[in-house]
Amino acid sequence: MKNEFLKHINLPADLRQLKPEELPQLAQELRSFIINIVATKEGHLGASLGVVELTIALHYVFNTPEDQLIWDVGHQAYGHKILTGRKDIFDSNRQLKGISGFPKRSESHYDAFGVGHSSTSISAALGMAIASQLKGENKHHIAVIGDASIASGMAFEGLNHAGVTNANLLVILNDNAIGIDPSVGALKQYLTNVKKGTEKQDNIFEALNFNYSGPIDGHDLPLLLSELKRLKTVKGPKFLHIITTKGKGLKQAELDQVKYHAPGKFDAKTGELPLKSKEKIPPKFQDVFGETIVELALKNDTIIGITPAMPTGSSLKYMMETIPNRAFDVGIAEQHAVTLAAGMATQGLIPFCNIYSTFLQRAYDQVIHDVALQNLPVIFCLDRAGLVGEDGATHHGVFDIAYLNCVPNLVIFVPSNAIALRNIMYTAQLGIDFPLAIRYPRGRGQLLDWKMPFETIDIGKGLCIKQGTDIAILSIGTLLKNVADAIDLLDQKEAVGYYDMQFVKPLDEVLLHDIFSTYKAIITIEDGTVVGGFASVILAFANANNYKQSITTLGIEDKFIEHGTVNQLQHLQHLDSFSIKKSIEDLLFVLKDG
Amino acid sequence: MKNEFLKHINLPADLRQLKPEELPQLAQELRSFIINIVATKEGHLGASLGVVELTIALHYVFNTPEDQLIWDVGHQAYGHKILTGRKDIFDSNRQLKGISGFPKRSESHYDAFGVGHSSTSISAALGMAIASQLKGENKHHIAVIGDASIASGMAFEGLNHAGVTNANLLVILNDNAIGIDPSVGALKQYLTNVKKGTEKQDNIFEALNFNYSGPIDGHDLPLLLSELKRLKTVKGPKFLHIITTKGKGLKQAELDQVKYHAPGKFDAKTGELPLKSKEKIPPKFQDVFGETIVELALKNDTIIGITPAMPTGSSLKYMMETIPNRAFDVGIAEQHAVTLAAGMATQGLIPFCNIYSTFLQRAYDQVIHDVALQNLPVIFCLDRAGLVGEDGATHHGVFDIAYLNCVPNLVIFVPSNAIALRNIMYTAQLGIDFPLAIRYPRGRGQLLDWKMPFETIDIGKGLCIKQGTDIAILSIGTLLKNVADAIDLLDQKEAVGYYDMQFVKPLDEVLLHDIFSTYKAIITIEDGTVVGGFASVILAFANANNYKQSITTLGIEDKFIEHGTVNQLQHLQHLDSFSIKKSIEDLLFVLKDG
Repeated sequence: MKNEFLKHINLPADLRQLKPEELPQLAQELRSFIINIVATKEGHLGASLGVVELTIALHYVFNTPEDQLIWDVGHQAYGHKILTGRKDIFDSNRQLKGISGFPKRSESHYDAFGVGHSSTSISAALGMAIASQLKGENKHHIAVIGDASIASGMAFEGLNHAGVTNANLLVILNDNAIGIDPSVGALKQYLTNVKKGTEKQDNIFEALNFNYSGPIDGHDLPLLLSELKRLKTVKGPKFLHIITTKGKGLKQAELDQVKYHAPGKFDAKTGELPLKSKEKIPPKFQDVFGETIVELALKNDTIIGITPAMPTGSSLKYMMETIPNRAFDVGIAEQHAVTLAAGMATQGLIPFCNIYSTFLQRAYDQVIHDVALQNLPVIFCLDRAGLVGEDGATHHGVFDIAYLNCVPNLVIFVPSNAIALRNIMYTAQLGIDFPLAIRYPRGRGQLLDWKMPFETIDIGKGLCIKQGTDIAILSIGTLLKNVADAIDLLDQKEAVGYYDMQFVKPLDEVLLHDIFSTYKAIITIEDGTVVGGFASVILAFANANNYKQSITTLGIEDKFIEHGTVNQLQHLQHLDSFSIKKSIEDLLFVLKDG
Repeated sequence: MKNEFLKHINLPADLRQLKPEELPQLAQELRSFIINIVATKEGHLGASLGVVELTIALHYVFNTPEDQLIWDVGHQAYGHKILTGRKDIFDSNRQLKGISGFPKRSESHYDAFGVGHSSTSISAALGMAIASQLKGENKHHIAVIGDASIASGMAFEGLNHAGVTNANLLVILNDNAIGIDPSVGALKQYLTNVKKGTEKQDNIFEALNFNYSGPIDGHDLPLLLSELKRLKTVKGPKFLHIITTKGKGLKQAELDQVKYHAPGKFDAKTGELPLKSKEKIPPKFQDVFGETIVELALKNDTIIGITPAMPTGSSLKYMMETIPNRAFDVGIAEQHAVTLAAGMATQGLIPFCNIYSTFLQRAYDQVIHDVALQNLPVIFCLDRAGLVGEDGATHHGVFDIAYLNCVPNLVIFVPSNAIALRNIMYTAQLGIDFPLAIRYPRGRGQLLDWKMPFETIDIGKGLCIKQGTDIAILSIGTLLKNVADAIDLLDQKEAVGYYDMQFVKPLDEVLLHDIFSTYKAIITIEDGTVVGGFASVILAFANANNYKQSITTLGIEDKFIEHGTVNQLQHLQHLDSFSIKKSIEDLLFVLKDG
């Protein structure tokens, strides 16, 4: 396909010069453009392919950026980015210093609101719509939200408020029956019935005072244009229900919507994914979790697995396939997931509640109020803790140690490798009388032979990996590998000891007294915020016990961290092995000098 | 009324000995019992009066505690407590070492789940119901939830999941059209229509796969009994909609449902509240907020006020009465409230988002992801920060400094008195380019003459209140008064200087360098958790700058704090003036000794 129309379009004003009948071809060009770049540069594919027609129709009918358009979550906004001034830099998507994989206010005036986490669009658009009303502006405010995201509680809160305003708000439900994994829940079933026509038009959204229209085919450009034009004239909160196919236009992506959500590199022409290498490589921590919970749950029938909408990402899908009656995908409902787990724990079950670190922020109150306050043995598996890489600032799991450490009763464990993750899961299901948070990173560890016989982990015990004479490095989590590499690079290896502290809470005070009585200086290292993080725990210990050593605190600085590879970001945060080596050498120099 | 039936009832088993026709009299006795005790001992009144019949019916029909009963929020559970073994100690309600004002697992097996914050009951009951299923038990699981609480997103998440299970769950909607303040939102309007009969039976809850029945009169005991008995035989998720009157049975409480939610002492016979003293007393911080926002908003038309369901408690009601188009009660929807504010802030409005400290835990992700990450100038007014007193462990606002301090971009201000609160509000609305959290306590300050001309506050500046020779006390917030009183009690007043640091973030590093260069020892004091709190900020400053003084960190210990008066709890946490004095004296002794 020739790039006849797209090559002339830099901004929506250019798009609006086309005739309506030319738009379907533009849709094909835009689709090809997305496929070609994502095939080589990677990123989120299926969602953007599904809304190509909607994206064109919205920018064609509405006067963006004056009219304000918010893409919920933002996985689907690649077409939007390409049509709003970022076509020529789209190949920098998700790369360090490149454009963000999500809409971002600082990147473009067309990105009305920064997104990444789900279900924020209705609230944000309503805030803008109320602002317009107060300022006497005649703008349109549009939230595009998927059927998985609209089932999250926050979206309901937004609808519930919007329905009693006369704000100029259009909510577009992009109903493709899938989020990252297939949508679940009663609302999803209900929407399916609406689509089948077995539910009458007087529906949930009308009950909430929205002017409802649809469902219509979201790939039918003439229909979209006419319906959006009509809705521009309707006052107050209105709701358009469109049906789309995730991955539309790429056969493989339509057929395997989960895999092609973010497929990695693929063949742009055939859509085929590269064959997997047969070389044995260390597993993802996600698979260590997923395989281990199955292994344990097959023997312990009180074990439960819970994920809020991430069965594939978390690998809980293995348990959902093997032991479906004890593994639950509750949809994008972190709050519910945590309190559901708490309810189960009161009955003697052992729930493993697997939530991405960044998304547990959504259930913070439930962790405090429903789990920790009642001291219930819920096991939180905080996936994607630390720097997550290309997803960037919205998704880094760097606050968890700080926000969990202040919560009484909670035990916080940070495995340094796959075996430690496996063993803490084993230990927890033997029976604990406290809530436990286990935080581990996205991606692969270092160990090939990780499926070793289970061993119990002593709660609150740290490990000495290597003793030294001058400096002790207190590490938490998988950065231990970088510490080991840094020491390997040193001339004065013997000067440095290092420790896998394992637990942020409770602290191994016996080991710490030993360390602080032995070494001249201490370095703490973590892949979370230094503010309130593991560093703060060690500082408090030193202060309480009157130790006066210098303590160097390595970790994430007090800024939001952008996107890039994990290695790049670790380097920028001085957490790679070379940076750690330099920190050690600087400190050795000071010690020698002093 | 004679206490004929109630005096023989200690447990539901006793209740079940009564004949059905005797239950209406028991209801009268129970109502009187509640009124008589709450009239003198204080507490939440209206909610429990409204569910007297429901409480009796539930314990009569269901086999509690085997069948599991969860009261959402728990304000309405006084009758439940009285009928489940706590009649004789009910006069210790909300008092130190007495029973909790909320259901609490450690207090009774009849309290199936601890509550306090809203909208948790469906998730918790579903977790129990799934557990029963897995264990092959034939139990009933009942969540009683009000119409204000069911509109919160978390409740929707629970319903959405429950609807696709066949769990033995009964959700009872106690619809009285009011939470603490009157209910709001589209769902509330919808429920009103259901009650009027203008909505057909095929309703929202049926759309979510619940077997719906009602609405029925929740004060009609025979009807309640027959309907609950019928529902016991219905499998799967079911929903009973009952209509009640908050404050039922006490005329004044029915007429002024907001005031009689928790009226303080009143005349048990007449229902009358005591006349207010005409003595001039310092205002509540809530009224300082409420009056100041009106004063500012009358001059600055970009100011917005937002409260999630606490217009009376927060005193935002003053603005809602004066400037209704710019003051919003969004219902129990903290997540929505914060992102709504973020949306408004993108449009140049200045939203004051007033949320109780403990409830901001519900919107933690929105604070990070929607406000701070985009560096939007939303002003969070964190009401009821610190120890709140009789509401106890579920409600203390002691985690906020820890969970907010790790969030980049955020500025955290803690006023030590009403004038500082007023002035920071004034300063913020002049225009800031960062999000700001202002945390202040429940109740009254010390200042009678607080309505002074506005002055701007320098962001990040602390104040020296009094210089000293040996010890510097770094205080944040209203505990400054206790510090001043402690110093007044000292013999060696000249030895102690004290500082109102005002900002947790950014720190006044100039002042701190001055302090650390001058004093031999430092004390930090705060009414939040020491872990991750202001103490941790000062420890990090000292470490980063190589100051080696001893730092004594006063604040809330790493435990959940129970209920009692604020004074009692401050004493237990060593934050009252006598305890502070002792800490100072101990430290002076050590300094002299060393």
